[in-house]
Amino acid sequence: MIQVALFGFGRIGQMHGENLYKHPKFKLKYVYDKDYSFARKSETKLKAKAIKHYKIALKDKDIKVIFIASSTATHINFIREAATYKKTIFCEKPLDLDLDKIISCKKYIKKFSPKIQIGFNRRYDPGHYFLKKSIDQKKIGTLQKIIITSRDPAPPPLVYLKTAGGIFKDMIIHDFDLIRFYLKNDPIKEVFATTSDLSEYVTLLKKVNDFELATVVLKSKKGVLCTINNARHCSYGHDQRVEVFGTKGMLISNNKRESEVELSNQQGTNSKKKLLNFFMERYQEAYYLQLHDLADLTIKSKLPRANFDDGHQALVLSIAAAKSLKLKKIIKIN
Amino acid sequence: MIQVALFGFGRIGQMHGENLYKHPKFKLKYVYDKDYSFARKSETKLKAKAIKHYKIALKDKDIKVIFIASSTATHINFIREAATYKKTIFCEKPLDLDLDKIISCKKYIKKFSPKIQIGFNRRYDPGHYFLKKSIDQKKIGTLQKIIITSRDPAPPPLVYLKTAGGIFKDMIIHDFDLIRFYLKNDPIKEVFATTSDLSEYVTLLKKVNDFELATVVLKSKKGVLCTINNARHCSYGHDQRVEVFGTKGMLISNNKRESEVELSNQQGTNSKKKLLNFFMERYQEAYYLQLHDLADLTIKSKLPRANFDDGHQALVLSIAAAKSLKLKKIIKIN
Amino acid sequence: MIQVALFGFGRIGQMHGENLYKHPKFKLKYVYDKDYSFARKSETKLKAKAIKHYKIALKDKDIKVIFIASSTATHINFIREAATYKKTIFCEKPLDLDLDKIISCKKYIKKFSPKIQIGFNRRYDPGHYFLKKSIDQKKIGTLQKIIITSRDPAPPPLVYLKTAGGIFKDMIIHDFDLIRFYLKNDPIKEVFATTSDLSEYVTLLKKVNDFELATVVLKSKKGVLCTINNARHCSYGHDQRVEVFGTKGMLISNNKRESEVELSNQQGTNSKKKLLNFFMERYQEAYYLQLHDLADLTIKSKLPRANFDDGHQALVLSIAAAKSLKLKKIIKIN
Amino acid sequence: MIQVALFGFGRIGQMHGENLYKHPKFKLKYVYDKDYSFARKSETKLKAKAIKHYKIALKDKDIKVIFIASSTATHINFIREAATYKKTIFCEKPLDLDLDKIISCKKYIKKFSPKIQIGFNRRYDPGHYFLKKSIDQKKIGTLQKIIITSRDPAPPPLVYLKTAGGIFKDMIIHDFDLIRFYLKNDPIKEVFATTSDLSEYVTLLKKVNDFELATVVLKSKKGVLCTINNARHCSYGHDQRVEVFGTKGMLISNNKRESEVELSNQQGTNSKKKLLNFFMERYQEAYYLQLHDLADLTIKSKLPRANFDDGHQALVLSIAAAKSLKLKKIIKIN
Repeated sequence: MIQVALFGFGRIGQMHGENLYKHPKFKLKYVYDKDYSFARKSETKLKAKAIKHYKIALKDKDIKVIFIASSTATHINFIREAATYKKTIFCEKPLDLDLDKIISCKKYIKKFSPKIQIGFNRRYDPGHYFLKKSIDQKKIGTLQKIIITSRDPAPPPLVYLKTAGGIFKDMIIHDFDLIRFYLKNDPIKEVFATTSDLSEYVTLLKKVNDFELATVVLKSKKGVLCTINNARHCSYGHDQRVEVFGTKGMLISNNKRESEVELSNQQGTNSKKKLLNFFMERYQEAYYLQLHDLADLTIKSKLPRANFDDGHQALVLSIAAAKSLKLKKIIKIN
Repeated sequence: MIQVALFGFGRIGQMHGENLYKHPKFKLKYVYDKDYSFARKSETKLKAKAIKHYKIALKDKDIKVIFIASSTATHINFIREAATYKKTIFCEKPLDLDLDKIISCKKYIKKFSPKIQIGFNRRYDPGHYFLKKSIDQKKIGTLQKIIITSRDPAPPPLVYLKTAGGIFKDMIIHDFDLIRFYLKNDPIKEVFATTSDLSEYVTLLKKVNDFELATVVLKSKKGVLCTINNARHCSYGHDQRVEVFGTKGMLISNNKRESEVELSNQQGTNSKKKLLNFFMERYQEAYYLQLHDLADLTIKSKLPRANFDDGHQALVLSIAAAKSLKLKKIIKIN
Repeated sequence: MIQVALFGFGRIGQMHGENLYKHPKFKLKYVYDKDYSFARKSETKLKAKAIKHYKIALKDKDIKVIFIASSTATHINFIREAATYKKTIFCEKPLDLDLDKIISCKKYIKKFSPKIQIGFNRRYDPGHYFLKKSIDQKKIGTLQKIIITSRDPAPPPLVYLKTAGGIFKDMIIHDFDLIRFYLKNDPIKEVFATTSDLSEYVTLLKKVNDFELATVVLKSKKGVLCTINNARHCSYGHDQRVEVFGTKGMLISNNKRESEVELSNQQGTNSKKKLLNFFMERYQEAYYLQLHDLADLTIKSKLPRANFDDGHQALVLSIAAAKSLKLKKIIKIN
Repeated sequence: MIQVALFGFGRIGQMHGENLYKHPKFKLKYVYDKDYSFARKSETKLKAKAIKHYKIALKDKDIKVIFIASSTATHINFIREAATYKKTIFCEKPLDLDLDKIISCKKYIKKFSPKIQIGFNRRYDPGHYFLKKSIDQKKIGTLQKIIITSRDPAPPPLVYLKTAGGIFKDMIIHDFDLIRFYLKNDPIKEVFATTSDLSEYVTLLKKVNDFELATVVLKSKKGVLCTINNARHCSYGHDQRVEVFGTKGMLISNNKRESEVELSNQQGTNSKKKLLNFFMERYQEAYYLQLHDLADLTIKSKLPRANFDDGHQALVLSIAAAKSLKLKKIIKIN
């Protein structure tokens, strides 16, 4: 079994910890969190050892994987150090909010040729991934349009929003990455973005100069038109749909529900249940499935679906979108 | 244009009258109703001539089609007379409630070899008919099961129920006929029926010795198992579904709605509108489409989807079902 | 019955002619077409009188409605003349391709206060219209997003494309109008458009400087974000969907099919039939339903869903979209 | 953690073993199988101890739960012994194929008042269970009809069929149990069954006097009509649907798929993926969820959804159905 150290034991770290515990190929040895009392929660639950300093994990030769699920601002430093110690690295998205830090990290770690996987969970969602395979197999002919709908049930709390980097870097970065995944070798060359604020959440979002609704249009070098329709709230749950349209067909990756029950009564017919309300439920399977790639990366050096460069390029698009919004025009990507 | 006389101008007669008026191949010349004031309503609306005696229509050589939409008890006599006058005949279902009357009529009209179409509208519903074609084209391999769900929005009024002949002869006769249509040359050999009464409608239905809920199971000579799930009421509209299952696939003819709108909110997602609430809306298209067959029968002597014998055999099954209910066992059909 | 003269008896004129013939409130008296042999086809079929000069209809005092279904370039003149003769006017979309001609016509006809209805059929589609009513009734709370998908089965022939005015004025004008319908008193203030060409149809479309794929983003004064996803071809039929998203819910007006059959077999499950392949089938009901408004406009002076100004404003947006495409930036609407 | 011994480590035993291993409340200590080499497979995989005699587990006081997943013929004896040792018992369905053995066991174990849960997984399927809760909460008014569709992808192999007890005791027993679950305190009073054989599988099934297709109709004391539509094969996967119809509404628990992807192309639209092909995939979640009940039964003596008597009564219905088939009439249940 592959021995892992997990950095960060907040909400998302705990979820990753449980997945690592359940996964047949991993053994969670250490858990580090800047708040040691958090890390200790892993001891009974996941039978891991809480450590007060992360260096312990880096120096332990049995540890093959450093799994970074700590706050965004700490990602780059952990990657630098883990690379130095020749560990396989998993890092949650986004890599960082600052492009320069990413670029300088990239240069620095180059000499270690580290094995790095980025936590873009959409790439591992069975539905979204089925679209990827179908596009590659030309099941819909030539790809022409990608349309993503992504609506969160409600905005995150203010404390989260303050450091999240805004709707483009925090939320839509997933959609930028998914589009890049589908486009493969066909890079984005144009980005256009517009936003709006219409609901009660405006007050909250204005405090951090963020937006409630966004529509982003991208065009690839070959001419694929991509649309992202996002909202920070959604009355019926976590709406996550992807549509890909090609010359020979169209595929939609639809929403998942807790069960496939349909109700018909005086009010209407074939009503399905509310959507799952939380991203960790919606992408539960994806979070688990990405561990298979991490195992393969560690043992067989097999490339994961999302690597360091994917983390880098998704941020480039996030920044371009913010710029388009400001200048009210198309931003070209080199 | 084919000149037609319509007998019966009640609710269903009026609907047929409008369809004949709109249809490019027919000209509605006469309307007869035992209540002359009813018939007169057709004059302004459909530009037909109301007649006080139906013989006028029979004797008019320009009249090619007698269209019988009067009350059930009058069907057989009208058929006998129209046959004598060598008219093409359309007759609403059921032919009659009395098997002997049907058999003796059959013998009598034989010498006139009349062209007769029976108004089994299900056979003309685009969805239900698509299943028929697919079965014949072996799209689902060997047919193995037919499952019909038929639920009326609410029971008819007492005055109608009194002469309707009960759930098997009035309502389920449509389903018996549809099963016979799908089975083609494979006759039904066993019938089993059970009923129940659980709702507030019991009081009404008991007055006429009728039932609220029925389940009928039939088996064909080749071994196709057929199930009919009926109810006299349905909170969400007129539920009309047909499922056919074969060795290589399964087809469902689903419910139609006024529009294809789906609502998602706090209560649920993808909720469609209530089903159409009335059989004349649900089968509106079927009622019109069966006129094409009537035109072809009149002009080209092309056999219609449902003929006199189909009317006869459907009643045989209705009677067998009632008998099975009484004896609590399977009834064999010769 | 309201006496009507139909101008233009090509493909769409013939369809309108049949609807007028079937509609209980109209009597089609005259049909005019610049090609008299075309007009004559109406004589046997629709029992109308073909006329060699349209003035005959204008001068006939019994004629209450002039129904304009001739080629786009003739619309404005017919409107001017019909207004002069105090007729109620129905005119197919688009009013014209030239904004100046529309504006000058508007000024000219003002003194006659003519009753005019424009043929924006989407407004009469039962599904799309249900969304309109639901928005107005605040069923989805505050409207925030409108997302239209519109994909034609295949591009029109070259001869049509030559005079059609391009994808924005010919095809997307329907979507601009529908968005205006939903937004009601909240005008569009920003338009952004991008296009692409990726399939075999490029050769055809380049001949007329037209585009295969388009994405248009609009923002209303209040902040509603609208997206239009169009394509000139679609392998699975005529894809016509509208989604409206609000603070309290979301509604989708989905595609219609010939029947509600679903197939399950080795290849997949619950596969529905191909979409209707032609706009006159897809919007058949809408084309008929808009005649009810025309009758009410004529008799009761009740305002129709789409009037002259709607025809005007939709063209303004079409022109803005073309400009945005050229300048690669947002175009502001005053 | 609750210490468990698992008896039987064949296909289904291994699946239960993995679930017990993953479940936070259980510790799998022993695995027994009559074939010791099978049991040993659990040692590396699940970190359990393979034992050569099951008595070791019974005698170990730390073992609180005996989990019986061995072949049907061994169930009753294991239950007797485990009851004697005061263990909490989980036993896979069916309890036994012989009613007398069940009744005599019931008498014998009575003095130990054992805590027993039966493995009727349908009761734990999130969709099917949602129907149960909704019925109890009167969400559909008075329950009137239960309609179950259950189609296996393909018949089991001959070696399995030989000891399985036939379609009523092996397969439809699940549906009988589910109906009893929904009916709660309203017992079945009438059973009618019919079968058929139409496909290539007839040869295989005839060898064991078994059937390919079955339709069973049941009526409860209150008058609820229940229909079971089963097939031993299904071209599109494992079709598992439940419909419950009441005076105020209708609920359908639909099929689950690996992902919610829909394909539209020349062949059709909105085609979903093939259904899951294996019962252990289809009811994966249910198998896991029933362990929560087992933990509660062990620790809190909270009654599980299915107990010994449920196992008993489901077999009573299976036997009645076989009898009805033979006598071609309704069988009454006391």
